[in-house]
Amino acid sequence: MKKLSIVDIANHLNVSKTTVSFILNGRAQEKRIGKELVERVQKFVDEVGYKPNSLAKSLRTGKSNIIGLMVEDISNPFFASIARLIEDRAYKNGYKIIYCSTDNDTLKTQELINMFRDRHVDGYIIAPPEGIEGDIDELLKDGMPVVLFDRHLPNVLTDYVEIDNLYSTYNAARHLIQQGYKNIGFVTFSSSQTQMTARMKGYKDALKESGLKPIIQEIVFNQNEEFIIKPITTFLKKHKELDAVIFGTNHVGTCGLKVINSMGIKVPEDLAVVSFDDYDVFQLFSPSVTAIAQPIEEIADKVITVLLNKLNSSVNGKEPQAIVLKTELNIRDSSKMTANVI
Amino acid sequence: MKKLSIVDIANHLNVSKTTVSFILNGRAQEKRIGKELVERVQKFVDEVGYKPNSLAKSLRTGKSNIIGLMVEDISNPFFASIARLIEDRAYKNGYKIIYCSTDNDTLKTQELINMFRDRHVDGYIIAPPEGIEGDIDELLKDGMPVVLFDRHLPNVLTDYVEIDNLYSTYNAARHLIQQGYKNIGFVTFSSSQTQMTARMKGYKDALKESGLKPIIQEIVFNQNEEFIIKPITTFLKKHKELDAVIFGTNHVGTCGLKVINSMGIKVPEDLAVVSFDDYDVFQLFSPSVTAIAQPIEEIADKVITVLLNKLNSSVNGKEPQAIVLKTELNIRDSSKMTANVI
Repeated sequence: MKKLSIVDIANHLNVSKTTVSFILNGRAQEKRIGKELVERVQKFVDEVGYKPNSLAKSLRTGKSNIIGLMVEDISNPFFASIARLIEDRAYKNGYKIIYCSTDNDTLKTQELINMFRDRHVDGYIIAPPEGIEGDIDELLKDGMPVVLFDRHLPNVLTDYVEIDNLYSTYNAARHLIQQGYKNIGFVTFSSSQTQMTARMKGYKDALKESGLKPIIQEIVFNQNEEFIIKPITTFLKKHKELDAVIFGTNHVGTCGLKVINSMGIKVPEDLAVVSFDDYDVFQLFSPSVTAIAQPIEEIADKVITVLLNKLNSSVNGKEPQAIVLKTELNIRDSSKMTANVI
Repeated sequence: MKKLSIVDIANHLNVSKTTVSFILNGRAQEKRIGKELVERVQKFVDEVGYKPNSLAKSLRTGKSNIIGLMVEDISNPFFASIARLIEDRAYKNGYKIIYCSTDNDTLKTQELINMFRDRHVDGYIIAPPEGIEGDIDELLKDGMPVVLFDRHLPNVLTDYVEIDNLYSTYNAARHLIQQGYKNIGFVTFSSSQTQMTARMKGYKDALKESGLKPIIQEIVFNQNEEFIIKPITTFLKKHKELDAVIFGTNHVGTCGLKVINSMGIKVPEDLAVVSFDDYDVFQLFSPSVTAIAQPIEEIADKVITVLLNKLNSSVNGKEPQAIVLKTELNIRDSSKMTANVI
């Protein structure tokens, strides 16, 4: 059965389209429409099962109650967890989330923004790749609420939620230095995004402060694990002097553990390990892995709260907020100093 | 700047809306529109940056090139990986994917189907909860392509892609029995979905065949790990006779390993372990965990191939396909028989 439109209902009952619309939108009393007519329309609607087309409704009201969420890669457990928490919180507030992965690809992201726009989403939550500054500026100019997270775009004036990346790696490196580790490596994706340059700087700052030499391996971002495992293997083989290593992302950390296992490296006796992000893999590895835990729940809460505030406030000229959250260094067995290192 | 519509362009250039539309849709030659006029329209469009509204276009052409994907829970690594692979393959074929989590909640799923419908998606990929048979039937009646995956709905006649769940757990249990394990437990979510009842049956069949007694713990599905860890702990404490356990899903398996760690149970000496699904946690745990690996890439390939075929074929009366894929039992250290068990 084809869905009935307001026009169909109006024709069938021989009343005006406007009257039907007022009744279906709960404005009968305001418009002084007679009780008998209201009942007649509602009885017919109950019988035929009319459902308002929410797209038509959104074109009329300008609201779809849908939020577009763009993560870098939904198969990354960090983004998957955040997406899920945001979805839960949005749903409880009457909003649905539709999400997709940008793959850190500028062109794909631009296409996705256009898609969301054409589908009339009410607001955008984006972990932005570089190169989409202009697209976001255009959204903002048109009064669309946009919240960035995980990183920000220095030249775009909008709200964002991120963590204190610089302090996170600084603190992790300090933790290793204080225990006496001297040759501390840093393995990360090569990137000029704000979160990644800050992580690099935090590591370098801590080493410089203590007069230690940075030993860095940057890896080109790739979905295929093989292309992450190979350079880590080469790096660990080349730098026999390493007594500790910090992995700059969860993906690099997991690949790093695979290399450590296959090379038969003993943790922490041969090599102490700290990784960015915390999840099951690091907790269940033996020895358990010291990890920089992002406050996932808090990030999701802040992102959705900021966006809902923007959606519900009529004032749109408010200064954009930069929310920077603290991480937690969960110290476990993988970074404890053992007798033979001292 | 507000986007210009075809009407705006027509008004500005003082030509008819239909003419502008023909030109912008590449039908100028067919409609014998003069070259000079075509150039005038295109020059203006280049200057003002007119972008066709793809929603309006999809209302006109009936195609949006968007596919709606509904998984149970995007934070589950199985669904996150599948979603990502489907997204990649769809994108290469000119389709965008928008996805969301059903949370196995019937009402939420119905709302999401309506949302996708109102946003004019071209096709649906759904890991269906129970209770949405009527909603899917309605989509099918309206000629919408729908592919189910991970499980199917026995009374719904549409294509689906799933694995041989029954054989998977049967085979895992046989592997343990053949090595001499006698008290083999099965810990899983309580569910009457097809994939879960088949896993249960496979386990029971293998034990029955060998005259062994099933020892089963069913857990109510819950996002909160605490509510999974607690019943597993109670189960393992109560059934001291267990010498092996099969975990029925990746989430139950990961929680099971946490319990095993916190109770200080030695694997496989005290308890052999096999889990459904295979991912980093199981590979990196020590001892490495024997796992029933779903062919993630193949599932994603089949799902998107079946859907694209349906989208591109004009014939819609084809018999629905049931594609059932094989799993692989990756045997690792956690299920090897040790001397003291024999």
